[in-house]
Amino acid sequence: MSIDSFEASRKRSDEIRADLSVHPENYTMLTGDRPTGRLHLGHYFGTIRERVALQDMGIATRIIIADYQVITDRDTTEHIADNVRNMVVDYLACGIDPDKTIVFTHSAVPALNQLMLPFLSLVTEAELQRNPTVKSEMEASGHALTGLLLTYPVHQACDILFCKGNIVPVGKDQLPHIEQTRMIARRFNERYAQVFPEPEGVLNDAVEIPGLDGRKMSKSYGNAIALSATDEETAKLIKKSKTDADRMITYDKESRPGVSALLTTAALCTGRTEQEIADEIGESGAGALKKYVAESVNGFLAPIRERRRELEGDMAYIEDVLHEGNRRANEIANATLNEVREAMGMVY
Amino acid sequence: MSIDSFEASRKRSDEIRADLSVHPENYTMLTGDRPTGRLHLGHYFGTIRERVALQDMGIATRIIIADYQVITDRDTTEHIADNVRNMVVDYLACGIDPDKTIVFTHSAVPALNQLMLPFLSLVTEAELQRNPTVKSEMEASGHALTGLLLTYPVHQACDILFCKGNIVPVGKDQLPHIEQTRMIARRFNERYAQVFPEPEGVLNDAVEIPGLDGRKMSKSYGNAIALSATDEETAKLIKKSKTDADRMITYDKESRPGVSALLTTAALCTGRTEQEIADEIGESGAGALKKYVAESVNGFLAPIRERRRELEGDMAYIEDVLHEGNRRANEIANATLNEVREAMGMVY
Repeated sequence: MSIDSFEASRKRSDEIRADLSVHPENYTMLTGDRPTGRLHLGHYFGTIRERVALQDMGIATRIIIADYQVITDRDTTEHIADNVRNMVVDYLACGIDPDKTIVFTHSAVPALNQLMLPFLSLVTEAELQRNPTVKSEMEASGHALTGLLLTYPVHQACDILFCKGNIVPVGKDQLPHIEQTRMIARRFNERYAQVFPEPEGVLNDAVEIPGLDGRKMSKSYGNAIALSATDEETAKLIKKSKTDADRMITYDKESRPGVSALLTTAALCTGRTEQEIADEIGESGAGALKKYVAESVNGFLAPIRERRRELEGDMAYIEDVLHEGNRRANEIANATLNEVREAMGMVY
Repeated sequence: MSIDSFEASRKRSDEIRADLSVHPENYTMLTGDRPTGRLHLGHYFGTIRERVALQDMGIATRIIIADYQVITDRDTTEHIADNVRNMVVDYLACGIDPDKTIVFTHSAVPALNQLMLPFLSLVTEAELQRNPTVKSEMEASGHALTGLLLTYPVHQACDILFCKGNIVPVGKDQLPHIEQTRMIARRFNERYAQVFPEPEGVLNDAVEIPGLDGRKMSKSYGNAIALSATDEETAKLIKKSKTDADRMITYDKESRPGVSALLTTAALCTGRTEQEIADEIGESGAGALKKYVAESVNGFLAPIRERRRELEGDMAYIEDVLHEGNRRANEIANATLNEVREAMGMVY
């Protein structure tokens, strides 16, 4: 993506962001996660917090638990049902309200998935090959490029367009996917009939929370604090995080990634700045910093974890939320697929 | 495909063919057509006649009207509903019995189409690229390779496996597709749980009926006699077919393609041999031959056309057949998708 088109996307994103609270009724948001493990602080500050805010603003919010995406680059679906249920627990504990937001699983909505067929006819092989995110995800996975990963931008278009989503919270690197969704919507509308909106990427300007080692927070790096961890597990993980030999605590992302990641974590959880916290710890060293971070994180997560424990004690309710979400998603998908059949003349 | 593996496929196909009438209850056959126009004599002698025979033998027969395949290499679905309904009329006129055979449309069965997602995860991009039929179809169409044509072997696997089809009547050039379906079934079963049969291609050894010019019979070459044509249209098409200046009628495919195609057409419709007919016409020339061919074809098609006219007069019945076929196909597809979800642990 060129700098110019990125700037245009940024500008458009800012305009939409300004309009969201003014005209929430004009927006349907689609977002989601791969159920590969528990949600962590990175998810919370990166997207979940914003989803809750948008939901509470009155924007139609749909969250897809993208279970089929687990197998784009893996050969197993081990623990998937457990991961899915815990994801619902995490969402609800963070403030997702199932009366306002539809939470559903990808594999439960056949009419959504059927959109793959007409949509695949609207893109060329060359366009599929060109998607930079697919290439980098494939390289990162070390797995041969599956047909499912190759066609990933097309499923994403199905996920967004089945509910006529017109906004999608994205990071900068996901903009090319949204561009493919817009292209698919446009081509469908031009070729058959006006059915789909051309969704816009709303750029996430949340500070990205680093993992405890300063790298991206990810379960596979062992640097992630799960929302579902206990206070003790959290303190232990923070305690063994890698800092450096300098007792004087300063905020310097480049040369002190470990210390700085801890400061950012505490800053996000307390609402203070990194500088303020560093000044307060001063020469007390990494031990004192880690103690403060553990307290901040556990304090911040306490109400979420409290709610989480309540929800875990009532898994029948979690199942109900998922069933109702799937029911509503199917209703929407069936209606959209009927419009698609009508537009294509496939009504017999 | 190597000669050795072709010989193995031929041998296996012969074994199955021998067993079909002995144990019809062991077989489920999936076959189908793209609804791009009316069925013609080539379809009839090439596949329809055999489908009717297998259906009447007691083999579970499922026929997919592959409406989404129309857009693998076209940008329009013009006339599609009309083509679909007329395809049902053609099938029934030829002896397909909707009480025995499930006739359904691809776009009406979401759970079948959802199989695309798990199946795409079981093939690599390299395997998709390697399919020779996809490449030759793409070159023939002169259209950029769409994502839908690239993934064609995977839809075909969905079409065959949703109903646990274990035999598929094929021409030699379609064997690689069946091989990909077998591979997908095998990988799914190994990775998750035993759900699918590995279907076998039953090689079609019907004489291929040539078009009136000796090339493959195809609507787009203008050399095809539609089942739905009138006697007059049929006679006219035969009359203007290209023969040669030699009045003496002889059967010689290589040097007299036009005359020989006419002889084969008459032979198939009368049950006589080409030689016999050629001897009878002798020196009476192409005019006499064409007259004989027109009479043979119209005579042969008379009962089919008679039945076709009756059916055309009751399109509500045709709609009913299609609705009932779609209902039954959905029932089967939903049950299979549930097994797939169970095998993958995606039951929430």
